[in-house]
Amino acid sequence: MIITVKKEASKQEIDKLIKHFEDRNLHVTLIQGDNYNVFGLVGDTASLDEKTIRANPLVDEVTRIAAPYKKANRLFHPQDSVIDVAGIKVGGNEKIVVIGGPCSVEGESSIMEIAKDVKAAGADMLRGGAYKPRTSPYAFQGMGYEGIQCMVKAKKTTGLPIVSELMSIDKIQEFVDHVDLIQIGARNMQNFDLLKAVGRIQKPVLLKRGLANTIEEWIMAAEYIMSEGNQNVIFCERGIRTFEKYTRNTLDLSVIPIIKEKTHLPIIIDPSHATGDWKLIESMSLAAIAAGADGLIIEVHNDPECAWSDGAQSLKPERFATVIEKGKKIAQVIGRDM
Amino acid sequence: MIITVKKEASKQEIDKLIKHFEDRNLHVTLIQGDNYNVFGLVGDTASLDEKTIRANPLVDEVTRIAAPYKKANRLFHPQDSVIDVAGIKVGGNEKIVVIGGPCSVEGESSIMEIAKDVKAAGADMLRGGAYKPRTSPYAFQGMGYEGIQCMVKAKKTTGLPIVSELMSIDKIQEFVDHVDLIQIGARNMQNFDLLKAVGRIQKPVLLKRGLANTIEEWIMAAEYIMSEGNQNVIFCERGIRTFEKYTRNTLDLSVIPIIKEKTHLPIIIDPSHATGDWKLIESMSLAAIAAGADGLIIEVHNDPECAWSDGAQSLKPERFATVIEKGKKIAQVIGRDM
Amino acid sequence: MIITVKKEASKQEIDKLIKHFEDRNLHVTLIQGDNYNVFGLVGDTASLDEKTIRANPLVDEVTRIAAPYKKANRLFHPQDSVIDVAGIKVGGNEKIVVIGGPCSVEGESSIMEIAKDVKAAGADMLRGGAYKPRTSPYAFQGMGYEGIQCMVKAKKTTGLPIVSELMSIDKIQEFVDHVDLIQIGARNMQNFDLLKAVGRIQKPVLLKRGLANTIEEWIMAAEYIMSEGNQNVIFCERGIRTFEKYTRNTLDLSVIPIIKEKTHLPIIIDPSHATGDWKLIESMSLAAIAAGADGLIIEVHNDPECAWSDGAQSLKPERFATVIEKGKKIAQVIGRDM
Amino acid sequence: MIITVKKEASKQEIDKLIKHFEDRNLHVTLIQGDNYNVFGLVGDTASLDEKTIRANPLVDEVTRIAAPYKKANRLFHPQDSVIDVAGIKVGGNEKIVVIGGPCSVEGESSIMEIAKDVKAAGADMLRGGAYKPRTSPYAFQGMGYEGIQCMVKAKKTTGLPIVSELMSIDKIQEFVDHVDLIQIGARNMQNFDLLKAVGRIQKPVLLKRGLANTIEEWIMAAEYIMSEGNQNVIFCERGIRTFEKYTRNTLDLSVIPIIKEKTHLPIIIDPSHATGDWKLIESMSLAAIAAGADGLIIEVHNDPECAWSDGAQSLKPERFATVIEKGKKIAQVIGRDM
Repeated sequence: MIITVKKEASKQEIDKLIKHFEDRNLHVTLIQGDNYNVFGLVGDTASLDEKTIRANPLVDEVTRIAAPYKKANRLFHPQDSVIDVAGIKVGGNEKIVVIGGPCSVEGESSIMEIAKDVKAAGADMLRGGAYKPRTSPYAFQGMGYEGIQCMVKAKKTTGLPIVSELMSIDKIQEFVDHVDLIQIGARNMQNFDLLKAVGRIQKPVLLKRGLANTIEEWIMAAEYIMSEGNQNVIFCERGIRTFEKYTRNTLDLSVIPIIKEKTHLPIIIDPSHATGDWKLIESMSLAAIAAGADGLIIEVHNDPECAWSDGAQSLKPERFATVIEKGKKIAQVIGRDM
Repeated sequence: MIITVKKEASKQEIDKLIKHFEDRNLHVTLIQGDNYNVFGLVGDTASLDEKTIRANPLVDEVTRIAAPYKKANRLFHPQDSVIDVAGIKVGGNEKIVVIGGPCSVEGESSIMEIAKDVKAAGADMLRGGAYKPRTSPYAFQGMGYEGIQCMVKAKKTTGLPIVSELMSIDKIQEFVDHVDLIQIGARNMQNFDLLKAVGRIQKPVLLKRGLANTIEEWIMAAEYIMSEGNQNVIFCERGIRTFEKYTRNTLDLSVIPIIKEKTHLPIIIDPSHATGDWKLIESMSLAAIAAGADGLIIEVHNDPECAWSDGAQSLKPERFATVIEKGKKIAQVIGRDM
Repeated sequence: MIITVKKEASKQEIDKLIKHFEDRNLHVTLIQGDNYNVFGLVGDTASLDEKTIRANPLVDEVTRIAAPYKKANRLFHPQDSVIDVAGIKVGGNEKIVVIGGPCSVEGESSIMEIAKDVKAAGADMLRGGAYKPRTSPYAFQGMGYEGIQCMVKAKKTTGLPIVSELMSIDKIQEFVDHVDLIQIGARNMQNFDLLKAVGRIQKPVLLKRGLANTIEEWIMAAEYIMSEGNQNVIFCERGIRTFEKYTRNTLDLSVIPIIKEKTHLPIIIDPSHATGDWKLIESMSLAAIAAGADGLIIEVHNDPECAWSDGAQSLKPERFATVIEKGKKIAQVIGRDM
Repeated sequence: MIITVKKEASKQEIDKLIKHFEDRNLHVTLIQGDNYNVFGLVGDTASLDEKTIRANPLVDEVTRIAAPYKKANRLFHPQDSVIDVAGIKVGGNEKIVVIGGPCSVEGESSIMEIAKDVKAAGADMLRGGAYKPRTSPYAFQGMGYEGIQCMVKAKKTTGLPIVSELMSIDKIQEFVDHVDLIQIGARNMQNFDLLKAVGRIQKPVLLKRGLANTIEEWIMAAEYIMSEGNQNVIFCERGIRTFEKYTRNTLDLSVIPIIKEKTHLPIIIDPSHATGDWKLIESMSLAAIAAGADGLIIEVHNDPECAWSDGAQSLKPERFATVIEKGKKIAQVIGRDM
């Protein structure tokens, strides 16, 4: 950690600061510049709070050198982690996984039909929301437990592991019992109590990036889960908020090589929520595969115009099958299976 | 609601769409442009989902004319709501309230001393975090229930109502029992289950604006609370994320006249989290009062350099007293008490 | 155009507004809602100024239905435009072009060597900045006309058309005489006088997207050029400013299908400026090709560590050759040559 | 400057780096951490290019300690600069200046009438655009030189110094001859050739903040002007782009204390462009004064509904007079005249 101290600091004040850090078992080097003094701290600085240090009126700036994450950090875990979701392997050099299904579960027959369709198209898992985070309290909030039960039946019929979003701590047992990959949504990426709660179970967690969060904050959210014991985290990029109006969000594909450089965890891409427009799904899916994604999660609906939520961004099963077909060829070029 | 339909839509398709909306008791007017057809829908469109409509490949754009909020909407509640926080009135033409206290409760003697200091300086309520949302799992997470108990003791001694942040549904009863104004933090602004939960109680809620949320999304978060029954919502602006690096966030004071135009609810300003820099607190506090804020919530600590969190943005009690003193004079100019 | 008028408007005021628009040869349809009146205007609304209309205190909102661009609009020019850059065709189903070269021209021998290297690697054009937009006045500002002359010599030797950035109107003739593809940089995307000036020549223009501009603003910048007569515009995405700190900007690949849907012009991708990190160039280049880009512009330097600007984002020639080699295979999968 | 080097760097490589910096007359201190090596460089680092250093694959991060600006830096010029605009003093503890007038000059009689109105209301200078930066090439582009001549006549009649926007280098002499305060607009904040050109004259420059620029970039734009010789720069905050849709931009008032801390130059506030809504002008103007602004620039029009541009954000002269009247009282509270 590097601390810049105003030139006006007296020798006494500087000595007091040095003692403060040495008392915390940190090794301090002092560099005297023309207009500033700079302290370099070596040792375990993770527990130091930058803001507290900045509270000292003599301190001008605090810069952290070491990344604030440990469990997720590739520096300390050089090998790729491969996460097992009910037998499907995600990450490393494993097959690129494809998750398909509706935004919201709308009933048993509907999810059953879509599940069969996505399986036929080549999907590895089935997605479907039973608890829905909606901007308006007057919009459809999801079928709740009944929706989870519909998903479970679709799993029994098709054999596809199921993915669904958990919004609240009080439903954790329900998800542990029935869901194979527990999604934490973008709006809950910094719901720290929920992160800690899924950190205390062992089910794999699909951690979506927050609407306006940096990659470091996202990795720190994974760190919350991992620091409680659950190492089975899969990142999911779903677009970030920008000024652009032609798309719902802006898909940031550069996160793929970055997450792989900074962490040892897998990353999959959600082009549906990222763009909000089914016409963009195919090109963004192929781009994601070319960039090295470990998987795709795509909204599929057999009747998007009548879907209860997010129809605009859903693919019909035929188009979904085409995306997989083309995706397999791109995967081959970069030396992976899909 | 205005729906733009591609010119290539056949008469049959247009008739089908018109029927679809008329079946939902909406009155449809069709405007035929050179390159588009436009439908105007009149009636209760709040339950219509824009994204589902947009899923129709013939639909080009959907524009909502009426605001999506009802309970919070000044159109339907022209008079200012005044919220009662344990006897302190907030909003309308009531006295501008000042809330002071540390970011985190750090122990009984510490909070007791600060409480006496902020009371002496003229504060109306005491703030203090017992459950802290921290970016890092390795940072101090707050004293928890013990911190709440310290706050309660400080209240007993000083008579100041207390404000604290609720992060999780399972602590609601604790907050109902002990806290006078329940804060929902920026990171939980769209934690919809938590919003619904505080909507089912009657304690006043201080609803902070999310880091990158629009005013409309913020009002919709209030609508979540109000639609469940609790009408006691106070907005709190705490800065939004921008590209600026010299401040922690960017304080948006234009929300004050806008919230007052669009809603009937009070709004207070948090210059401490907005700027992250104690040197900016005074000028931003005076600006907030000049702009018509109903209150201020300011971090105060008697030893900011040793504070356990956010010392950099805390005022010492003397400076806090100065802010109140100058603020009173600004308040007078715009015809309010403070 | 849709205009929402407050319900409190009197019949007389509404009639006055209707007359105002009918006098401008617009056909007006009035829709009366419960809380608003809505006017639909049909006709040539491009010259209407939304902000002037909004100045009327009775007007609540103004929504434009038709896109504000004409020349660039695919609606009126359904076929892809193919731009000819000194014999190299860009756009349509033509070969995906690759432009390589240093950020700044650093001297004759240096650019000559790099030009040979990028040609050997398979590049179609040579890039090199002679006039450099730098954040600091104390940073290297480019070699100026001498740099352009170096580029011309490199063109003579290699046969590669040359691309360079024009920053000021007074250098236009120099660029018309020597440069094959005139780049307008991100910071000048809304330098309207410069846009008009390059609109009055016929040399192809490479129009970079502004740091924080929407796609619509970007197309309007192209419209400025085209409305003056020059139809030879190629869009270039180079990343937009977001909150992310691990990358210099955020590359928005969804612009590729959108630009192709909304306009008839080609679009190429600059992964170097978008990411600022040579380690991300390969994956982002492959992703861009998979998403349908018409070309790539990549910084290449034979000694990045000693480059005078932007060394961090430059590829060595060998890595550049690898990107092209892998890119060709991705291009093949989506049915294009490269 | 602090440079973080990967732990894997060999002694030889580190020695090479140290020599590289020592050859540039910099004093190097090496701090060896557990996972990184950190170099501290002392000396004149302004000419070092961070990106070139980062190109070295062993370098992980580069952090600049000293601010990159010199001429504008308060560290080296502790006293407030007061800028003289045709006899009106701006900055320091001088009277808070008020600039009023239309967005665009629309003709001689119109500007003459508005000039008299703003003078009567108490304005110190007259603003009016003759060359207009418009998003659309089909929108009114300003009256050009004829508009400047109208402004000059209004100045002769009222005695008010005039402020107008310069968009292009080729009009500089016209502005030097006729305009008292030359405005550089937000979209040209990083039009570096234009900045250098106004740096070579001595007329005061009103430098607006770019739409999505940081304060540091803004100060660096001032530094471009000042490094060429012209020290007469006044900053003007006009709102930054955020996700908010209820306002045109987001007014950032925290820039006032920050600009005053970091630089010695004056800063004025433009609430009209910042909000785009005349209803918000009064509250934001009062807030700006309370926060310490050196002046206000406000759009005033005697018939906003018929204005040729930006009517929505213009005040009628009566309302403008009210703002000044209330502003004077706020100014008094903070110890300034207006």
